[in-house]
Amino acid sequence: MKGIDINQIHPTAIISEKSKIGRRVTIGANVIIYDNVELEDDIVIGPNSIMGEPTATFYKDKDYSNPKLRIGAESLIRSGAIIYAGSTIGKCFKCGHRVTIREKTKIGHHTRIGTLSDIQGDCYIGNYVRIHSNVHVGQKSSIGNFVWIFPYVVLTNDPHPPSNILEGVMIEEFAVIAVKAVILSGIRIGKDAIVGAMSLVRSDVPSEAVVGGNPAKQITTIRNIKSKYIESPYPWREHFERGMPWEGIGYNEWIKKQYDN
Amino acid sequence: MKGIDINQIHPTAIISEKSKIGRRVTIGANVIIYDNVELEDDIVIGPNSIMGEPTATFYKDKDYSNPKLRIGAESLIRSGAIIYAGSTIGKCFKCGHRVTIREKTKIGHHTRIGTLSDIQGDCYIGNYVRIHSNVHVGQKSSIGNFVWIFPYVVLTNDPHPPSNILEGVMIEEFAVIAVKAVILSGIRIGKDAIVGAMSLVRSDVPSEAVVGGNPAKQITTIRNIKSKYIESPYPWREHFERGMPWEGIGYNEWIKKQYDN
Amino acid sequence: MKGIDINQIHPTAIISEKSKIGRRVTIGANVIIYDNVELEDDIVIGPNSIMGEPTATFYKDKDYSNPKLRIGAESLIRSGAIIYAGSTIGKCFKCGHRVTIREKTKIGHHTRIGTLSDIQGDCYIGNYVRIHSNVHVGQKSSIGNFVWIFPYVVLTNDPHPPSNILEGVMIEEFAVIAVKAVILSGIRIGKDAIVGAMSLVRSDVPSEAVVGGNPAKQITTIRNIKSKYIESPYPWREHFERGMPWEGIGYNEWIKKQYDN
Repeated sequence: MKGIDINQIHPTAIISEKSKIGRRVTIGANVIIYDNVELEDDIVIGPNSIMGEPTATFYKDKDYSNPKLRIGAESLIRSGAIIYAGSTIGKCFKCGHRVTIREKTKIGHHTRIGTLSDIQGDCYIGNYVRIHSNVHVGQKSSIGNFVWIFPYVVLTNDPHPPSNILEGVMIEEFAVIAVKAVILSGIRIGKDAIVGAMSLVRSDVPSEAVVGGNPAKQITTIRNIKSKYIESPYPWREHFERGMPWEGIGYNEWIKKQYDN
Repeated sequence: MKGIDINQIHPTAIISEKSKIGRRVTIGANVIIYDNVELEDDIVIGPNSIMGEPTATFYKDKDYSNPKLRIGAESLIRSGAIIYAGSTIGKCFKCGHRVTIREKTKIGHHTRIGTLSDIQGDCYIGNYVRIHSNVHVGQKSSIGNFVWIFPYVVLTNDPHPPSNILEGVMIEEFAVIAVKAVILSGIRIGKDAIVGAMSLVRSDVPSEAVVGGNPAKQITTIRNIKSKYIESPYPWREHFERGMPWEGIGYNEWIKKQYDN
Repeated sequence: MKGIDINQIHPTAIISEKSKIGRRVTIGANVIIYDNVELEDDIVIGPNSIMGEPTATFYKDKDYSNPKLRIGAESLIRSGAIIYAGSTIGKCFKCGHRVTIREKTKIGHHTRIGTLSDIQGDCYIGNYVRIHSNVHVGQKSSIGNFVWIFPYVVLTNDPHPPSNILEGVMIEEFAVIAVKAVILSGIRIGKDAIVGAMSLVRSDVPSEAVVGGNPAKQITTIRNIKSKYIESPYPWREHFERGMPWEGIGYNEWIKKQYDN
């Protein structure tokens, strides 16, 4: 029976009877799992994490009922993460330490979010997205498949703060947002575009454009980027495979198969 | 008796006998409350928080006694916050996850501090201040009433680091500091001024000025800002009411009443 | 017997039998100490910390054995810190709240790392280094003795992200990296150099140079910096002593003694 159908749940974990815990789920010390959390099979929840954190309504409404939080199979939630009730996360999700993910967020499969990142809620995040450490994703952000976001990037949503207007950022697939960039509210970053380190992006970025500076301006296009290491570093999918669905066969082979199916 | 005079204290919480806990206080799992913490009535302390964290002197002085930490009624401290001994916080304070507030800080009433923000101590923060996520407030900072500070802003205090000189930033009431701005030591930001996203502010900002860039320069004044959403977005208090004392009646009506009283 | 050879270990701490705990070690509530952690004498581990966090291999390899984590005598680890297995930290280390230090990192003695900072692993950090709050140190970074790094600095390592190339930043001794600077991959910052607040550093910085801006350019040299407070603020070691080995005698006297020995 070893290793099969055994829930390894630390005795200090506090788990609501109204949660559903899949098979072979590991739950670390001092974890709290609130009502209506659904953990699929083969998930690891690191120590001190909180799953299904009640939303702000809980503190105001006596009839509050926790909305459902569902986390997909084979996900790894590192210690100290806080994931609110009312979100849905796909399978094979990997989450760094002390990440915060608020309510009404939908995250695809095979996505990773790094240590200390803060997803403010009401966001859409696609599949195979890589959000590195300490990234701040404002409400109403929409992040396409295979997007990379590097440390300390901020996606904003208020055109003249403080106001009641919420206009999220939209980032299209394969785009790369380098370290410390800020994207202002309502901006669209095109497919395959690159936003340079420490850029302040105030206007839409076309597909394959490279922008940089404060304020950001277009510098070149991705196919003009040279490197001493790789002949054509961009589009990155043509040489980078680690953790991607085309690992081992290359992007071009993989995408052909996708169309064949 | 239901809901009245019941302290809802989780059995795993560790609470000093030398603390004072008000009525209807909720204390979550694994919370630690050190000596000389005073919690007024109707406070919620989220799981894993530490209230009255001893100052650095504790590790050096055998006769150390924890200075008092007082938190006002109806405050909400979200999980993982660490508030040091020796600070005073007004009523209706709301605090995000994993906030750090160090000693000798005075915070007014109805103020909010977002997830991961770090108040370094010896600071003054007024009433109805809004400090968003991941803001770093250096020692000796002074923040007036109704100030807004957005994510990843840093208020510094050392004119030529490292030195022993500490000159805090002063932000006057109603000012708005947009995302990722840095304010250098000793700078004063005038009433109603706006500091643009990612600005590096090296000189005083007059009231109602709008500054931006690295280094920051004055761009315009707040009354010249146009918007497709709101006729005159600034001063913000004339259209934004949520959570403000003028909610429901508008700022102008409210301020008239203040003078009448 | 009071105060002598007594391990003060909170009963809620979870401590592997395969760890070695020195004398007069304090271990706070809810601390987790995994296999093969070695804590020397007179260490304080704050509540909720995790020492010897297993590396990513743990989740893949059934035969995983935790590499050794060694922490030097008289170190102070504040609450909520996570230090991975497989690192070595010298004596008199001070670590802020919720710091993350990943595997294969070597840290010298008398070094301090501030609240929320994130050392990504495979880094070298010297003696008497001061890393302030919320600093992000990418893999393969090398930081010399007596370096100061201020809040929200990011040291990167990937010349065209995402790629498999890792080129760390090298910072030579006594250099000062001011708040929010970003250093791009493979850059060398010379001895005594100053990187200004919010700089984006894309090329090597010579010794004693002062650079600033986005992108960073050389502005002056450190000996030209004037101050109303101190005649010659740089090199800082000639007037700043707090916590340094020359405290009380001054740098020049101390360095003479070093050569005499």
